[in-house]
Order: sequence, then C-alpha cells, then structure tokens
Amino acid sequence: RSISNRNKDLLRAIFVEFLGTLFYVFITTDLNYLLAPGFVSLMVAFGKISGGHFNPAITLAVSISSGFSKTTIFYPIAQIIGGIAGAGLTKAVHFSFEDHSHYRTVLDRSVEPEYGIICEGLITFILVITYLMSIIDKRNKDSSMSPIAIGFVVAANHFATFRVTGGSMNPARSFGPVVCMSNTQINHIIWKYHYVYWVGPTAGSIIAAVVYRLI
Amino acid sequence: RSISNRNKDLLRAIFVEFLGTLFYVFITTDLNYLLAPGFVSLMVAFGKISGGHFNPAITLAVSISSGFSKTTIFYPIAQIIGGIAGAGLTKAVHFSFEDHSHYRTVLDRSVEPEYGIICEGLITFILVITYLMSIIDKRNKDSSMSPIAIGFVVAANHFATFRVTGGSMNPARSFGPVVCMSNTQINHIIWKYHYVYWVGPTAGSIIAAVVYRLI
Amino acid sequence: RSISNRNKDLLRAIFVEFLGTLFYVFITTDLNYLLAPGFVSLMVAFGKISGGHFNPAITLAVSISSGFSKTTIFYPIAQIIGGIAGAGLTKAVHFSFEDHSHYRTVLDRSVEPEYGIICEGLITFILVITYLMSIIDKRNKDSSMSPIAIGFVVAANHFATFRVTGGSMNPARSFGPVVCMSNTQINHIIWKYHYVYWVGPTAGSIIAAVVYRLI
Amino acid sequence: RSISNRNKDLLRAIFVEFLGTLFYVFITTDLNYLLAPGFVSLMVAFGKISGGHFNPAITLAVSISSGFSKTTIFYPIAQIIGGIAGAGLTKAVHFSFEDHSHYRTVLDRSVEPEYGIICEGLITFILVITYLMSIIDKRNKDSSMSPIAIGFVVAANHFATFRVTGGSMNPARSFGPVVCMSNTQINHIIWKYHYVYWVGPTAGSIIAAVVYRLI
Repeated sequence: RSISNRNKDLLRAIFVEFLGTLFYVFITTDLNYLLAPGFVSLMVAFGKISGGHFNPAITLAVSISSGFSKTTIFYPIAQIIGGIAGAGLTKAVHFSFEDHSHYRTVLDRSVEPEYGIICEGLITFILVITYLMSIIDKRNKDSSMSPIAIGFVVAANHFATFRVTGGSMNPARSFGPVVCMSNTQINHIIWKYHYVYWVGPTAGSIIAAVVYRLI
Repeated sequence: RSISNRNKDLLRAIFVEFLGTLFYVFITTDLNYLLAPGFVSLMVAFGKISGGHFNPAITLAVSISSGFSKTTIFYPIAQIIGGIAGAGLTKAVHFSFEDHSHYRTVLDRSVEPEYGIICEGLITFILVITYLMSIIDKRNKDSSMSPIAIGFVVAANHFATFRVTGGSMNPARSFGPVVCMSNTQINHIIWKYHYVYWVGPTAGSIIAAVVYRLI
Repeated sequence: RSISNRNKDLLRAIFVEFLGTLFYVFITTDLNYLLAPGFVSLMVAFGKISGGHFNPAITLAVSISSGFSKTTIFYPIAQIIGGIAGAGLTKAVHFSFEDHSHYRTVLDRSVEPEYGIICEGLITFILVITYLMSIIDKRNKDSSMSPIAIGFVVAANHFATFRVTGGSMNPARSFGPVVCMSNTQINHIIWKYHYVYWVGPTAGSIIAAVVYRLI
Repeated sequence: RSISNRNKDLLRAIFVEFLGTLFYVFITTDLNYLLAPGFVSLMVAFGKISGGHFNPAITLAVSISSGFSKTTIFYPIAQIIGGIAGAGLTKAVHFSFEDHSHYRTVLDRSVEPEYGIICEGLITFILVITYLMSIIDKRNKDSSMSPIAIGFVVAANHFATFRVTGGSMNPARSFGPVVCMSNTQINHIIWKYHYVYWVGPTAGSIIAAVVYRLI
C-alpha cells in the first residue's frame, strides 16, 4: 500500500486504541465484573484494526517481540488519554452517586509496595504471555478464540489479585481514574504508591516477552 | 434471485426481527443478567437471516452505513411490535408475582433527562460501533465471534449504566414494557421521560455511524 | 457406508445421547447455574456424534423437520434412561446432604397447570427454534458457535421461568429426578402435575417445527 | 523435523505444561469461580504447544488413547512442580490474609473416602471424555470451541461436587496446595485422605479412555 494509506491505517489504529481504552475504562471501572464481557467485545470489534492492546504493557511486549515502530510511542499516548477520558465519563455518568473511591486501583493497607510490584508484575506476565501466544504467535492457525482468551485472562487475573493491588495489569487503566478522582483526602497516598502500577506491569511485560522467545 | 424470492427473504427477515425482539424482551426484562446469554443465542440463531438487529438504533446505523431500504422502515415496526408482545408474555407468565416495575427502563430520581439522553447515547454509541465493526465491516474476515461480541457489549453497557437510566440502548426494548405496564400510579412520570429512550439511542446511533466512517 | 457401519454409528449416537443426558442431569440438577457451561461442553464433545439433543423435545422437532427414523424412538429412550441415571448419581453423591427437593422441576403454588403448560411450551419453542436455526439450518455456514447458542438459550430460558415452572423444557430432565426422589411426603402432588413437563415441551416442539418452515 | 528440533519441541511442551499448571493453580485456588475463564484462556494460549493438559489424569488418558511416549512421564512431573509453584505464589501474594485452608481440596466431614474416590472418579471421567471427544477425536473437524468446552466442564464438574470432595479432578492441583499449606494443625488428616485425589482421577481417567474407544 502507498505511504498515504499506511499513514491513514496508523491513524485509524491509534484512534481505535484511544476509543477502545476509553470504552474499557468507562465500562469496567465502576463494576469490575464487566471486565470479561467488555474486553471480549472490544477485542472482536477493534482487534483487526489495531491489535486490540488497550494497554501500554501489551504494546511494549509486542514491540519487543515484533519490532519497535511508531505504534510503540503513539499507542500508549492514545491509551493514556483514552483512560483519562473513560474515567471522566464514568464519573460524569455516575456523578449523582456518592462514592467513587473504588474506581481506583489501590494497594491493600497490609501490602508493601514491593509486594504490589511483584503481584502486578506476575499478573501482567500471565496476561502478556497469553496475548503473545494467542494473537502474535504464528503457530496459532485459528485465532477466532483469541478475544475470549484475552478478555477472560484479564478478568481472572484481576479477581485473583483484587484484594491485594486491585488487579490492574495496565498503567493506562490505573492512571485515568487517579487523575479524574484526585480531589480526595487520601490523595497523597494514592499518588505516593501509583508508581507500583507502572513498574509492575512494565517489568512483567519485559519478562513475558523474554520468556515467550523460549516457547 | 427472482423478485418473488427476494420478497420472501424480506418477509422472513422481518418476521425474524419480530420473533427475536419478542424472545429478547421476554427472556431479559425480568432478569437482566440473562441479557448476555439470551442475546448471544439469538444472534447465532437469527443473525444470518436478518442481521440480528432486534433494535431500531442498530437498523438506523446499518441503514446510514450500508444504504436505506425497505428494512429501514419494516425492521423497526417489527421490533416495536415484538417488544410489546415480549413484554406482554413476560407479564402473563409472571402474572402471579406482585411487582413488575423493574420491567421498565426508568431514570434514577437524581438523574436529569438531559443526562439520561447523554448516558443512553453513549452506551448506544458503544453498542453500534461494536456492531458495525464486528458484523458489517469487511475487514473482519472471521465473524464467528460476532454474536459473542454483541451479546457481551449489550450486557456490559446495560450494567455499567443500570443505576442511571436502566441501560436500555434500544427504543423497542423500552417501549414494550411501558405499554404493557401502563396501569400504574406513577404512569405519567414513566411516559413523561420516555422520550429519553428514543432520543438518546437515535443520537448515539447516528454519531456511531459517522465515527465508523473514520475508522 | 455399509449397513454394519451405519448400525454401529446409530449405536454410538444412542449411547452418546444416554451419556450426555446423564452428565447434563448429574451436573445441573443440584446447581442450576451450571446449565450454561455444562450444556456448552456436552454440545462440543458429543454434538458431532449424535447431534447433541439430550432432550426428547428436540428429537421430536428434528424428526418433524428432517424426517422420522430409528433415532425418533431410540434417542428419547436413551435420554430418559440417562436422566434417571443422572438423577440417581446426583442423589448418591450428595446423599449426606439433607434436602433434595430442589432437584425436581415443580409448579409454583400460585400457578395453574394450564399456565405451566403454556410457560413450558413457550420456552421449549424458543429453545427448539434456536436449535433448528443454529444446527439444522443449511443457511448457517459457520456452526462453530452453535454449542454456545444452545447452552446459553437453555440457561436463559430456565432462569426466565424458574419461579413459575422450574424452567425444564425437557421431559427427560424432569422425569429422572421425580423417579429418583419419589419417597417424599408431597409425592402425589409431584406426580399429579408431572404431565405438564411432557405436554408443554411436546406442544412447544411441534409449534417450533412448524414455525421453522416459515423462516 | 530433525531430532534436535523434536527435542526442542518436547522441551517447549514440557515447559508450557509447567507454566500452564502454575498459572491455573495460582489463578483459581483462592477463587474457584475463576476456573472457567482461567482455563479457557490457558487452553487457547498453550493448547497448540502441549495439548493443554495441565493435569496428570488427562496425560494418562491421552497416552492410553494415542500411545505412550516421553510426555507420559515428563508432563506429570512438570504439572506437579507447576502445581506446587502456583500454590506457593498464591500463598505469597495473599500472605497478609489470614485463612488459606480453602486452597486445599478436602473431603466433607460426612463423606467416606470410598465415596470421595467415586465422586472424583466420576467427574474426572466426564472431564476426560470431554477432552478426548473435543481435542483428540479426528471426527471433530472444527476444534475452535474446544478450549471453551474444557474450561466450562472443569468449572461445572468442580461446582457440582464442591461440597463433597472440593471438585479436584486433578492430582497436580490437589497436591500443590497441600504441600504449600502443610504447617497446619489438621495436617495429618489432610495427608491421610490425600490419596483420594490420586486414586479417583486415575480410575476415572482409565475408564474414560476405555469408554472413549466405544464411541
């Protein structure tokens, strides 16, 4: 295809990553049991346009595995803006209800940040391995079930660690709600440990991309 | 095919839209957690005959994208009649139980109608984009997962906004139960804000059809 | 294939209908929320061998649509025996727990038997139409999602009418638990209205087979 | 392929069985309702590399059906080590929460070990038949739904017998948590009846492999 068409494809893909992350954060931040159905739908709808990352940790691992490109930079920017927009819409739609604190992913009081990083790293590792094996791997001839695999593993990982770190696996999903719900008393604590949701998923993503080469 | 056969196909498709909307409203108005399984089944069963709209907002967006035709008029009529019939059957089968008020989609007391329209417009936008990308879009070579995508996004959107507007996205689904449960004391309030469930989904559908062209 | 091989295929199919109905009743009579996952799995595993009926009402409708044969008689016999065996195994495995009354499909006290027949007929109609459209209909080129469609519609129909009739749609599923849990005080009432679970599904199945020809 | 490549494939498959069993035990031992989504995802991700056993009882039945090989020995070793590692990670991540006793599969107080063996044998029989029919059987031309079938039947079997034996069907899943949670007061009782979770699944697996030949 011509350069002009390739640029249009890139713009479409970046727009879809923005829209998908917006939808994902809007649908699932209030009610986390909507993670599986919401994510599966978005993967089916948008997967063929952008790959359906909706998560900087996945974009990083795909870049390590398949090569760095413009998407390595632009996808995460679109995802982060989408996450902020989605959290803002969630807040706007539910503005008449009192408590928004459960929108954010936070560490349990008993959990040290190092443990939070290990926990987020571990579930991001599981998610990214599943993504790479289902969607990127060439040995997978029938990828029709991949959206189910990604949506289900996101939900399963989330609930398995919900009590510990809130089960994020996704810096864009964690960042948006913190930005939009920043006017609270416990604000400084929220920001203080927010790095956990960037360091953990980044580490898990890199390790998954390395382990994937062994498989 | 001959004109006679094309007319038979059209009649079949209209009948299936009636039957599918009837089933959908019958199965899910009493227990909304049946939205996902009910919708997925109907999409698999009837999708190949009529496209599986069961919703005037989807018929509108498909008409904008793929061209207006007889279905633009006849599908919504069949869907609205199906919605009334389905709500009537729900009421008949559950006649011995006291409270039918949860059959209707209503605004939360704290929600202004403009907010209701924005909320319904937003979730209809998400639904219609998912429908167009999964079922209409030619870039989607394997559409086997489309019924899952539609059923799951309907359920996720519904629950994400259930407390605000009842999460309808569908004028036919909202109209039927209001018609069949009209003999109640709060009747005038129900009808007063009922336009929210026509304006919101219509606006969301048109915007989705426009945005879809960009993707 | 030779007559000998065709007979072996028939025997395999009958055996699979017995085994599938046994598994289905064993897995789902105690906990009805296992209907969807249980049924989907059985359809995937056994569908290609026998068609995955596990229900005399489906066998009847398939016979009306595709022609009567030996399976019209032998499938229901295998299903009924499988239902009794499955209910017996459920009772044996849970023998140390007190209450087995929820194993049976019974009419709500407020429901007249004619209403029960209409209710069972209606949900069987929805199930059978879904089965015929998903699995039998030649216009359905990709039937990979059919097991999901059948499993989900069985579960959705069941829960939509659970309070009214127990949501059976299946004489074999209703008969087995009544046979195995017959030593109870309210026994005569259970048997008195048991015909509802044969008349309703049979009527719904015949009507569905007729309506299917119109589509 | 050359011997060297075949050995690499074998090593990859063994590694994937270790990793998959680790993930499966980590995700689902704390919250058993994650069994279905977790298992489906792992089957999609790893099924094409190793067959997606994650269970010595499945490896045994596949070996009986398709022939014994190096995997007959190495898969179970990898699964057992993976189960121990997964249970250890579950304990580490949740270390700040008090009660880990529900991690283990244990017999209900009212259940004799012989009944436990029958119960575990029965559900393993159902699981293994479903696995062989969905994944191994050559008559199954479209195996895209197989991961759903396996994940759903594991969850359905588990919940159907949860109160009786804990619904294991998998020696590796039962062994890991017992090893990692061995420093408890009721330890000797846990180990005393632990053989139930080896004898039952082994018997169910062998019977399923025999019955499969009849189908």
